[in-house]
Amino acid sequence: MKIINTNDANFKSEFENILSRAKTDIKHVSAIVTDIIDEIVDEGNKAVKAHIEKFDKWEVQSDEDLMISQEDMKKAYENINDDLKKALHIAYDRIKSYHEKQLPKSWIDFEKNGTVLGQKVTPVDKAGLYIPGGKAAYPSSLLMNAIPAIVAGVEEIVVCTPTPNNEINELVLAACHICNVSKAFKVGGASAIAAMAYGTETIPKVDVITGPGNIFVATAKKLVFGEVNIDMIAGPSEIGILSDETAKPKYLAIDLLSQAEHDEMASSIMITTSSDVASKTSDEVEAYLKTLSREEIARKSIEERGAIIVASSMDEAIELMNEIAPEHLEVMTTNAFELLPKIKHAGAIFLGENTPEPIGDYIAGPNHTLPTGSTAKFYSPLNVENFMKKSSIINFSKQAIDELGEACAILADTEGLTAHAESVRVRLREGK
Amino acid sequence: MKIINTNDANFKSEFENILSRAKTDIKHVSAIVTDIIDEIVDEGNKAVKAHIEKFDKWEVQSDEDLMISQEDMKKAYENINDDLKKALHIAYDRIKSYHEKQLPKSWIDFEKNGTVLGQKVTPVDKAGLYIPGGKAAYPSSLLMNAIPAIVAGVEEIVVCTPTPNNEINELVLAACHICNVSKAFKVGGASAIAAMAYGTETIPKVDVITGPGNIFVATAKKLVFGEVNIDMIAGPSEIGILSDETAKPKYLAIDLLSQAEHDEMASSIMITTSSDVASKTSDEVEAYLKTLSREEIARKSIEERGAIIVASSMDEAIELMNEIAPEHLEVMTTNAFELLPKIKHAGAIFLGENTPEPIGDYIAGPNHTLPTGSTAKFYSPLNVENFMKKSSIINFSKQAIDELGEACAILADTEGLTAHAESVRVRLREGK
Repeated sequence: MKIINTNDANFKSEFENILSRAKTDIKHVSAIVTDIIDEIVDEGNKAVKAHIEKFDKWEVQSDEDLMISQEDMKKAYENINDDLKKALHIAYDRIKSYHEKQLPKSWIDFEKNGTVLGQKVTPVDKAGLYIPGGKAAYPSSLLMNAIPAIVAGVEEIVVCTPTPNNEINELVLAACHICNVSKAFKVGGASAIAAMAYGTETIPKVDVITGPGNIFVATAKKLVFGEVNIDMIAGPSEIGILSDETAKPKYLAIDLLSQAEHDEMASSIMITTSSDVASKTSDEVEAYLKTLSREEIARKSIEERGAIIVASSMDEAIELMNEIAPEHLEVMTTNAFELLPKIKHAGAIFLGENTPEPIGDYIAGPNHTLPTGSTAKFYSPLNVENFMKKSSIINFSKQAIDELGEACAILADTEGLTAHAESVRVRLREGK
Repeated sequence: MKIINTNDANFKSEFENILSRAKTDIKHVSAIVTDIIDEIVDEGNKAVKAHIEKFDKWEVQSDEDLMISQEDMKKAYENINDDLKKALHIAYDRIKSYHEKQLPKSWIDFEKNGTVLGQKVTPVDKAGLYIPGGKAAYPSSLLMNAIPAIVAGVEEIVVCTPTPNNEINELVLAACHICNVSKAFKVGGASAIAAMAYGTETIPKVDVITGPGNIFVATAKKLVFGEVNIDMIAGPSEIGILSDETAKPKYLAIDLLSQAEHDEMASSIMITTSSDVASKTSDEVEAYLKTLSREEIARKSIEERGAIIVASSMDEAIELMNEIAPEHLEVMTTNAFELLPKIKHAGAIFLGENTPEPIGDYIAGPNHTLPTGSTAKFYSPLNVENFMKKSSIINFSKQAIDELGEACAILADTEGLTAHAESVRVRLREGK
């Protein structure tokens, strides 16, 4: 694995490559996806069916064919083995418990002059979850997207997932049953996003669309933003690790590989203060690579997009890591907690040697849908507030408008808005 | 003003028109804006200058010409009269006080097995505020966009505002001084959004862009979403009013007009349970229209996009209003507070006869940047969290991974991710 030093002459350009790791030109994808969306808007189910025949290679006979029945979800759940069932329930309970702690409360506040100000928090009516299908169909994706919506109090949760050759991933179905999904449809890709954003004869128009997907799904989410809300636009998975001389190279190596095995485009970056840990970790990565079922993918990712950076101090390491703003950040140092105040940008922060990143993918509780490609500088992990929205509450008493109305009218005058000013002044004149 | 009844034969189609009030085809705008963004990305300041010469009709001599100096802001502030200065400070203090109540706290939570889970809340590093220029330059826009960023703790606040003929709106400048804006630039439209999203030699790349604007600005915000975060995509202003027989027609009329005067495309919709109030309000609107400085705009808006709906019950009225999901909602009924539980979708809710909507535009405290065109179904008012983001915190103890690790590894096995499973199991085998 490539080891670079912050003192190297070419460090700046190497680091620039890491910072621009997520740059992709979506223009050609945009054009294709725009056409797909237009077809769904214009033709509804007819276009949905045509897209399924084209991309998923099965023939849809009727509108009902698009739907996955509650019975199938239940059957899939009953068919899974007990260990897996137990693991899914542990995950469900822990994810739910964490997200319940995020639930915002409506509030009101009072002023002496009788003014009441507040904020009402309400769930959206309908949420649409996109869950990838085929080989990359992950039941954990369903749990991580559905549970925040459930905790938010969303009444109708809709799932779209592609079923290549009309084969449904049984584990995703089982997870749908556990999460009590309202409606699920065998539709994938940009068509699914368009169908949930605009609605068809069968697929409901939702208010918020979340969930992972390939570049077509991500582009479709961006294009329907405004018609519905979306969580974020996600790219390939990433891990950043901060380590010092106390970290175990074997742990560091397998944790770097746990991102690399996802995707050839995944990025695994460690910044360490120890050159000894750097070289030992590189050796361990090589040793581990041969043992992985997805060796080829992981190797390509590590070779082309992985790096170990040796920094001259932990402060320098943290500063660089804040610029990278990784999706996942492991802190494997002494006193990991004490570094938290300086860590500004990361999707999820894993502290200490017993907290490998996959713990957060499945079972810890916090969401595994996290901002990638430095977007942790401004996006949050998927959370209950993605499925809720706020309304301001304002109530002025007669005393309040008498005290503050003229200042308000002056500002309206200044902006040349005479109806605004008069709406206040008529109350000052005539109110009681 | 048009009065319709929910029992009318054509009610459904009339109501459909209201629901689709914000539909616009942005495809031709999209193409223009995409070109503008590409030019800024490729050429930086050179393109910024060319766009200013083209759209704002003045010649930029140097990069420094793009900047507005702190001195100019201070001078503008000193030049405004005392009443206006006082009104601006009242507004500033009240807006700040309200937004401070929104500030989320980082939290951590502990489990008996030693697990620590939490959520760290951090401000973004840089915020970019877009403030329209020329005649529609509103100092209140600056306050409403800057103060949530200030309260969030954003270190660098950047403002872009167009200056047609190189003339700066003095009140916006004064508001910049009050808000202690870090840097301000004389750049407008899609160019400003692109410059703040990608950065130029002079204009910093920011993390979040907020602020109102025309269709070009709104489209540019949508197109740069993902490169930066944005607040929302806003359309023309709107008011919805719920009223019963106790409401004063004169108040209702001027409040409807206070939105209509903004824009010919603005929508002013009242739903009332009283046909008497409906017809009297319509008369008052006509009487008031002639007195307004912006009569022509207000009249066109009221005639083409305004409506009074007579409903058979307050429950029906509220249900319809939830479908409309207006930007501003006034509730002018007896016991307005008691209707709050049923009101699901509105940007801001104004309760009672002493709370005209303009109070919320300037001085009440809550933000006046609100979701339009039914997007209150999923967007929130601009708030401090638009300028902050969260990171999950996870720390597992040895006991915690020993208890939960195998369930995690089973889920990883199921998804075929062997490095994920091994990153947990190596700790179960070798950890201490």
